[in-house]
Amino acid sequence: MINKLVSKIQKTNAPIVVGLDPTLDFVPEHIQKKAFAEFGETLEGAAEALWLFNKEIIDATYNLIPAVKPQIAMYETFGVEGMQAYKRTLDYARSKDLVIIGDIKRGDIGSTSEAYAIGHLGKVKVGSNVLSGFNEDFATINPYMGSDSVNPFIKVCKEENKGLFVLVKTSNPSSGEFQDRLIDGRPLYEHVGEKVAEWGATHMGDSYSYVGAVVGATYPEMGKTLRKLMPKTFILVPGYGAQGGKGADLVHYFNEDGLGAIVNSSRGIIAAYKMEQYAKFGAENFAEASRQAVIDMISDIDGALKSAK
Amino acid sequence: MINKLVSKIQKTNAPIVVGLDPTLDFVPEHIQKKAFAEFGETLEGAAEALWLFNKEIIDATYNLIPAVKPQIAMYETFGVEGMQAYKRTLDYARSKDLVIIGDIKRGDIGSTSEAYAIGHLGKVKVGSNVLSGFNEDFATINPYMGSDSVNPFIKVCKEENKGLFVLVKTSNPSSGEFQDRLIDGRPLYEHVGEKVAEWGATHMGDSYSYVGAVVGATYPEMGKTLRKLMPKTFILVPGYGAQGGKGADLVHYFNEDGLGAIVNSSRGIIAAYKMEQYAKFGAENFAEASRQAVIDMISDIDGALKSAK
Repeated sequence: MINKLVSKIQKTNAPIVVGLDPTLDFVPEHIQKKAFAEFGETLEGAAEALWLFNKEIIDATYNLIPAVKPQIAMYETFGVEGMQAYKRTLDYARSKDLVIIGDIKRGDIGSTSEAYAIGHLGKVKVGSNVLSGFNEDFATINPYMGSDSVNPFIKVCKEENKGLFVLVKTSNPSSGEFQDRLIDGRPLYEHVGEKVAEWGATHMGDSYSYVGAVVGATYPEMGKTLRKLMPKTFILVPGYGAQGGKGADLVHYFNEDGLGAIVNSSRGIIAAYKMEQYAKFGAENFAEASRQAVIDMISDIDGALKSAK
Repeated sequence: MINKLVSKIQKTNAPIVVGLDPTLDFVPEHIQKKAFAEFGETLEGAAEALWLFNKEIIDATYNLIPAVKPQIAMYETFGVEGMQAYKRTLDYARSKDLVIIGDIKRGDIGSTSEAYAIGHLGKVKVGSNVLSGFNEDFATINPYMGSDSVNPFIKVCKEENKGLFVLVKTSNPSSGEFQDRLIDGRPLYEHVGEKVAEWGATHMGDSYSYVGAVVGATYPEMGKTLRKLMPKTFILVPGYGAQGGKGADLVHYFNEDGLGAIVNSSRGIIAAYKMEQYAKFGAENFAEASRQAVIDMISDIDGALKSAK
């Protein structure tokens, strides 16, 4: 799956991923009305609204991008009904041949991590049947509990040719509270990064590992260090756009082959129609605004990578 | 909700929680057969089997215990259908007036953490309605991303009188890989413990904070240190029983008031009928075996607390 991600990035010339993190506030009124007319102002109605919203955005952008990254929390907030919208979104993205990064940030001890891994990346046995739960291609995971929380994910990834992105340095302002604390003279996130490289060495694709890392766009200096520390690790970079990261900040997240990183934007793409820059599209054409925002983001990053050469 | 937990622990004299972490392997054949006869060997059939299993265990134990702790991973492994069984389990436990600790180990940045918090502990606005997603009483969360990943959970907890258990020192063998690393001469888990106490001071119940900590039974010396570092923090203690922790190891997790900790057992209770000690009950009476295992666990911990006095 890392090979597929790399090849799709090369084909689209777009090392980006669209974060499908909808809130009801992002969903234009005409879509909300349609969903509520059918299901009422219920969890089911909200889930339908998210799904209709996502579908249009996927339709408008899928041929420009290699991957989508639905943030499961935005669906989980609507309970089981929301999870249903998450699953429909995954299935639809798959039908468009997009690589799916489930932003689930799971992590637990041994057998419990395995249950998460099976549910999201693997297959589960029910009687004589072997079935898929959510079926993402990659999942984000939290390393706080150490190797025996990560290894069950790697095991399932090996069986299924799937991959992970392990949190190393997150994009939020207080990420330094624990991640930046010095251990033997080096910040915790570097120790985690080293572990990610070590875990990754056990499950390699052609040029990159199936085990990637999450490093926020908001800390470009740390991104530069981590890039060197984990040369074969693909880096998923959140924090572009709405959180403040720009293309020029991101050049050091990439290797000299122009690969090695994939930059996420969520609000900046899916709620583009609410920004002054794209307001001309109007709420009715929100998905066209998203398409334009994708084109602009690709060009921003491509320009930054070219001028860095 | 922390006051309710304390008062229920006092009423039952049972500082324990039953971990509802079923796998299909734990579900006796006659229940599997019943579920598969109705729904086939499908995700729905598996979910039904888990739910029927949980219901009998709750029926057999609810009047002995203050709380249950369903581990969401065991449901998530069966996709959306599994999540439905999780939700049915929560609703049934609530109807029996049990305190519900959702073992979800979530955590993300700002608005995403808030979405998790709303989905699991709070209420979500849909049009003019205000609705509940999963509706647990407590949730476990992961602190790796720092304060701005935890604060949105605390905000929702304040609005709803609900609580948290933050991972501090987990029970698994490799938990030390990052958690035990020394920062300014002290292990990371102590720094996290101090933060938990600080977060907890902002949301206090009568004698304990709404913000608790997870400290594994498998590290009793560390439990002792953390107990002193976080005097007003309720400690959720996994790792009893199947993972190796015994009542005698746990006395230092409690304060002198006999409170301050709640010990979880999962496999040791719900799969008791598979253990030699309880085999006499037979698979048909698995729930009675669970009841006996609860009685024995309460007596083990009560004995340990008494002989420590």
